[in-house]
Amino acid sequence: MSLQSKVREWMRTHREEGTALLQSLVRLPSTQGREREAQELVAGMLREMGLAVRVWEPDGEALRSHPYFYSPRDRFAGSPNVVGVLKGTGGGRSLILNGHMDVVPEGDRGQWQHDPFSGEVADGKLFGRGATDMKGGNVSMLLTIQALRELGVRLKGDVIFQSVVEEESGGAGTLAAIMNGYRADAALIPEPTNMRIFPKQQGSMWFRVTVKGRSAHGGTRYEGVSAIEKSMIVVQHIRELEQARNSAMTDPLYAGNPIPIPINIGVIRGGNWPSSVPDSVVLEGRMGVAPEEAIEHAKEAMERWMERLEEKDAWFAKTPVSLEWFGARWVPGSVDPGHELIAVLSSQYQEVTGKEAVIQASPWGTDGGLLTLLGDTPAVVFGPGVTHVAHYPNEYIELEDMFRAAEIMALTLVQWCGLEEE
Amino acid sequence: MSLQSKVREWMRTHREEGTALLQSLVRLPSTQGREREAQELVAGMLREMGLAVRVWEPDGEALRSHPYFYSPRDRFAGSPNVVGVLKGTGGGRSLILNGHMDVVPEGDRGQWQHDPFSGEVADGKLFGRGATDMKGGNVSMLLTIQALRELGVRLKGDVIFQSVVEEESGGAGTLAAIMNGYRADAALIPEPTNMRIFPKQQGSMWFRVTVKGRSAHGGTRYEGVSAIEKSMIVVQHIRELEQARNSAMTDPLYAGNPIPIPINIGVIRGGNWPSSVPDSVVLEGRMGVAPEEAIEHAKEAMERWMERLEEKDAWFAKTPVSLEWFGARWVPGSVDPGHELIAVLSSQYQEVTGKEAVIQASPWGTDGGLLTLLGDTPAVVFGPGVTHVAHYPNEYIELEDMFRAAEIMALTLVQWCGLEEE
Repeated sequence: MSLQSKVREWMRTHREEGTALLQSLVRLPSTQGREREAQELVAGMLREMGLAVRVWEPDGEALRSHPYFYSPRDRFAGSPNVVGVLKGTGGGRSLILNGHMDVVPEGDRGQWQHDPFSGEVADGKLFGRGATDMKGGNVSMLLTIQALRELGVRLKGDVIFQSVVEEESGGAGTLAAIMNGYRADAALIPEPTNMRIFPKQQGSMWFRVTVKGRSAHGGTRYEGVSAIEKSMIVVQHIRELEQARNSAMTDPLYAGNPIPIPINIGVIRGGNWPSSVPDSVVLEGRMGVAPEEAIEHAKEAMERWMERLEEKDAWFAKTPVSLEWFGARWVPGSVDPGHELIAVLSSQYQEVTGKEAVIQASPWGTDGGLLTLLGDTPAVVFGPGVTHVAHYPNEYIELEDMFRAAEIMALTLVQWCGLEEE
Repeated sequence: MSLQSKVREWMRTHREEGTALLQSLVRLPSTQGREREAQELVAGMLREMGLAVRVWEPDGEALRSHPYFYSPRDRFAGSPNVVGVLKGTGGGRSLILNGHMDVVPEGDRGQWQHDPFSGEVADGKLFGRGATDMKGGNVSMLLTIQALRELGVRLKGDVIFQSVVEEESGGAGTLAAIMNGYRADAALIPEPTNMRIFPKQQGSMWFRVTVKGRSAHGGTRYEGVSAIEKSMIVVQHIRELEQARNSAMTDPLYAGNPIPIPINIGVIRGGNWPSSVPDSVVLEGRMGVAPEEAIEHAKEAMERWMERLEEKDAWFAKTPVSLEWFGARWVPGSVDPGHELIAVLSSQYQEVTGKEAVIQASPWGTDGGLLTLLGDTPAVVFGPGVTHVAHYPNEYIELEDMFRAAEIMALTLVQWCGLEEE
């Protein structure tokens, strides 16, 4: 029996166990600050599989002084990182498997058909907050290690299993792991790519634009200047910057993506009285950063562009908008599509699914940006689950994909790290 | 000495007293629900002047069933109306003097140079919430009666002095006075017209438009539909309705007013996460109603116009906006510019100031709409103070105008009601 057949057989016979494991993780609502229980569960499993496990709460003091630290908090009590190392026999390439355990809040429960923390299974799908982003991917990682251990496979290279916190808030968990010295020849992050392979990923950061007007009574509104009307010019102006930036994107990995690096305006609020002319409107949004672009370059593009608003309307010459960068930020990342890990992953994908791998650039950021940029560890994103259910009510994952991903990852590990034959 | 000279002299010698009276009223912060003390002060003065005074809290139960009742509350404990009647000797025309005692809240105190409830005087101006809207006008009314009484003037027609509550919230105080049977041959309301005469007044009502989009992750924003972008189409669409309605306004009383009946959009809010495509935006505004227009006609114009949004963007055919009428509403009003009270007021204005009276249509509503429409009492608005400081920090009134207005009103009363010669 080939190793591939053995892995597939192992996955088939561990279906119930794997499903129950994901259910257990979904039932532990590991929103920010509440990750401990889920992390302890993972740490326990890794110890049982014989990995050398370290569990620690990131040091807020040390993180705070790091230029890439972004988080709404700097105390991580109750939010431990977990790293388990599976030492290789030597002479092979090492790999980091990185997944985050934090999930975003469930939002309005009234919009959920199932309890968001019940892990209910229906039609081959498991429902719940974090099912796709990314506890499903975490279970794929765990099944990968467990299958190889139980099948007696010994790898030449080290496998470093990372279950981190804070991905949803800017990556402080992975940053803490990097600051603790964890490095590898490459990294694999099973975020929900719907089994596509992402060597490149968009970065992003949040901005806030404040548009000023001049107040007046609504009955004589011509005496005022409506910040709502002026904000329409700003929205249009931002659209034009988005168009210019995207028309310059020639990377074939973005072929078919209508807006590779979007500038999303997510929030608008202004005025406080129906019969007054509003004197202020705030726009908040997310600016995409191209995989090879420096964050500072993108910031500067936006800042310069805002200065050109006065070409659209003289009002802005006297009353410029203010631009702030606030909240979250995700570092972009880029790995050469010719990188050996992509080749290995693609061939194993084809082996397992019979279909050609899809290689694209990611429309969103992951902790892979930090690993690639700061951790000297080229990170590739590949995992089960579909993005469009992430962060929304009725999030789910197709269980079949979770097991398929585990199978592909197990075979990738063997080929990447090397098999120690007996 | 002519009566005019006597009135002028009286005003000159009562300058300190009048200023102190306005100061006392401004120092009683008569915001909604807290009008009692200021109203008791007025009632006491009217009694001293020999008027038959009635003080009563409007009956919420009775008001609630009236089709023109608009208020955020239906209990008026602590908010009495005051009406004082000065019986004429007979054979003359009667006049209602109507002023509201309620003031809007002071807002952000940090933006006030003086304490908003101190009534500080500087450079001939008295500062404070309500100084212009409309305690200054109320003092003009009080000085008018006091001067005529002290000068021994006896009028043929009745004068009905009304100090009402709730004008700022839709006119429930004046409605209660109408429901209590008070009527006259005409009414004069000294709201801040900057001494212009307004036979016509714009009505207004508040609306809320909810624009729907479709949510998506900001990184793949092309999968969603931005309610912010769709709301820009709605704002533009409303502008076009405003243009159409205003280009049809040929009333010469609106000559020189660039937007006689504006549609103001005062509030916008939508989305709740910078990196999500917003699925909902709410617009709140104030729609002006022409003096001779029925409220229902204006509503229908807006409703029909919203249905035509789909001509601008097919999105609205499947996802129509919702339109609600909420909150406050002020009835429009129109008195024939040839009305005798206008002629009297104009001639007395010229007599006192040496300048020709300015007759215009008002860009905002007052309780005059209710008096004209429901109270069989044609109401004309004329008073001291300038609108653009009303409802804003550092509201003030020019004291000189307050005394001038009182002088003009006293002489108007004599001419309108008729003088009983001894």
